[in-house]
Amino acid sequence: MRPDLLKRVEALLPGTHQRPEVQLLYRMMRDYPQRGGKGVRSELLLLSAQAHGVQPGSAAWESALWLATALELFQNWVLIHDDIADDSEDRRGQPALHRLHGMPLALNAGDALHAYMWAAVQQAGVPGAFSEVLDMIHRTAEGQHVDLAWVEHREWQLHPDDYLEMVRLKTGYYTVVVPLRLGAVVAGRTPDPRFEAAGVALGAAFQIRDDVLNLIGDAALYGKEIGGDLLEGKRTLIVLHWLDHAPADQRATFLAQMARTRSDKDPQQILTLLEWLRESGSVQYAQEVANRLGDEGLTLLSAALAGLPGQDAAGQILTLAEQLTRREA
Amino acid sequence: MRPDLLKRVEALLPGTHQRPEVQLLYRMMRDYPQRGGKGVRSELLLLSAQAHGVQPGSAAWESALWLATALELFQNWVLIHDDIADDSEDRRGQPALHRLHGMPLALNAGDALHAYMWAAVQQAGVPGAFSEVLDMIHRTAEGQHVDLAWVEHREWQLHPDDYLEMVRLKTGYYTVVVPLRLGAVVAGRTPDPRFEAAGVALGAAFQIRDDVLNLIGDAALYGKEIGGDLLEGKRTLIVLHWLDHAPADQRATFLAQMARTRSDKDPQQILTLLEWLRESGSVQYAQEVANRLGDEGLTLLSAALAGLPGQDAAGQILTLAEQLTRREA
Repeated sequence: MRPDLLKRVEALLPGTHQRPEVQLLYRMMRDYPQRGGKGVRSELLLLSAQAHGVQPGSAAWESALWLATALELFQNWVLIHDDIADDSEDRRGQPALHRLHGMPLALNAGDALHAYMWAAVQQAGVPGAFSEVLDMIHRTAEGQHVDLAWVEHREWQLHPDDYLEMVRLKTGYYTVVVPLRLGAVVAGRTPDPRFEAAGVALGAAFQIRDDVLNLIGDAALYGKEIGGDLLEGKRTLIVLHWLDHAPADQRATFLAQMARTRSDKDPQQILTLLEWLRESGSVQYAQEVANRLGDEGLTLLSAALAGLPGQDAAGQILTLAEQLTRREA
Repeated sequence: MRPDLLKRVEALLPGTHQRPEVQLLYRMMRDYPQRGGKGVRSELLLLSAQAHGVQPGSAAWESALWLATALELFQNWVLIHDDIADDSEDRRGQPALHRLHGMPLALNAGDALHAYMWAAVQQAGVPGAFSEVLDMIHRTAEGQHVDLAWVEHREWQLHPDDYLEMVRLKTGYYTVVVPLRLGAVVAGRTPDPRFEAAGVALGAAFQIRDDVLNLIGDAALYGKEIGGDLLEGKRTLIVLHWLDHAPADQRATFLAQMARTRSDKDPQQILTLLEWLRESGSVQYAQEVANRLGDEGLTLLSAALAGLPGQDAAGQILTLAEQLTRREA
């Protein structure tokens, strides 16, 4: 994230406490933010504010910076809790927080960070921002729930449309739709209704690319373990497409491994499954769907941004949105 | 909790969704609130509002009811996450949420409930309430962190003062101090500074009684497994006092069991430890400390309430506070 947003995060969070135990909590709250993320969502929000006419240096810009800080805090507490739910190994190239400090302390640090996200929203003082953020959490929690419920209930009777609906909720709103909408709200304008369809398509394209990178990415750039989704039993577009086309014996091997918990999975079999997935046409299929959704989203977004006062910023939004859907890391 | 608060909780939370997976999330969010809790914190807040001059039926009373709803939502999302952190078996006489649906779904449902707690604060529309609630979460998270860090780091070099500081943070603010303060804030008054010392003492007395009930209570009334604190390796005043006075061999047996994870503990040895603790003077000692703190808190509280306009409600606060520190379930 931008250095000035990290500064706001650090200014907002509690700093020192006389008890060393509590000092550890404060360090844990700062850990993920300090690892540096791409800061895509906060960047989108700030560009959207400018596209809607907010001038850097103005009072509305100050509010936009606090809302951008809130999005970064949201991303970070959600990642702490996601990593616990998935028992992920790595985050941004370092061990996940619960692997460093145990699940109970990490869970609690995520809760504390969640509360400070609302403090950043409060600092912004923008009428209407509160309900946007509530809506964002509500939908993201729904998407996260659907994703986790499929794992919990060993549900594999799923189609690409199920995946796309899950991803729309889990990724679309918080990655694109709500950042774009908040940029309008902070400018005192009504968000263009086309942001929703545009953002949902772009968010899905972004997530599908993430799923592809999880299979074939460069671990050093990606920051998470390659193949982690498979260990976590994630239903990705690639896997759902592959299941519809795989030979019966490969399908049976896959489902047998997926019926096991993460720690009971056979590492050799997982490597074999990875090879099958990589060599199938399903990665290519997923990339094509991501491209199509990316194009759809960009067309819609371009139309929605066309009449706004800040056309420089609007152009940068389109560039950023295109990078999102073509991401290599 | 009061039926009218449960109604507000249910009106605020999302109700129906066309996807059955999401419907399950909504049911999970309502589960703990519907099990019924004592509703002590919301009751204290409403009585404090009346003591500060808020009339039932007024606009300020409507705000007080929303803040009371927020306290109930706080209690419920915290319990979901606490039960995960401690891997507790039961809550309010039924299996803990993560034991019914798995940890990942329960963790996420707690996060969603946390967000709706802020929606209830927003509904109240009371200037100053936001920062009271943020302060409450901040301190409760600090106390929870200290409690969990002792377990995580196998820390037993602790004294009764450490316990009392932990409990002050973990229980005192959200159980007594902040409910009392919010009652003043909703009436447009500055909270009496004595509420802090009074609430911290009463909250500690309440928690010590809880620790005693966890050892010697009636499971049916108490709603949690008796001896659960011992299985979870909790540092209670009873245990810390007992460690200072136990024979060396009993102490060694205790520490050997506490070095194990919950599932690796020897059930027979735990039963023996329970007997030793129950038969020692440490339960009696803890009850005496609770009584002393309860008396201190009641004296301070009585003085702080003396000048307020609603003396009927002030009297009921003192009765409720006394019940808290003498609780039998």
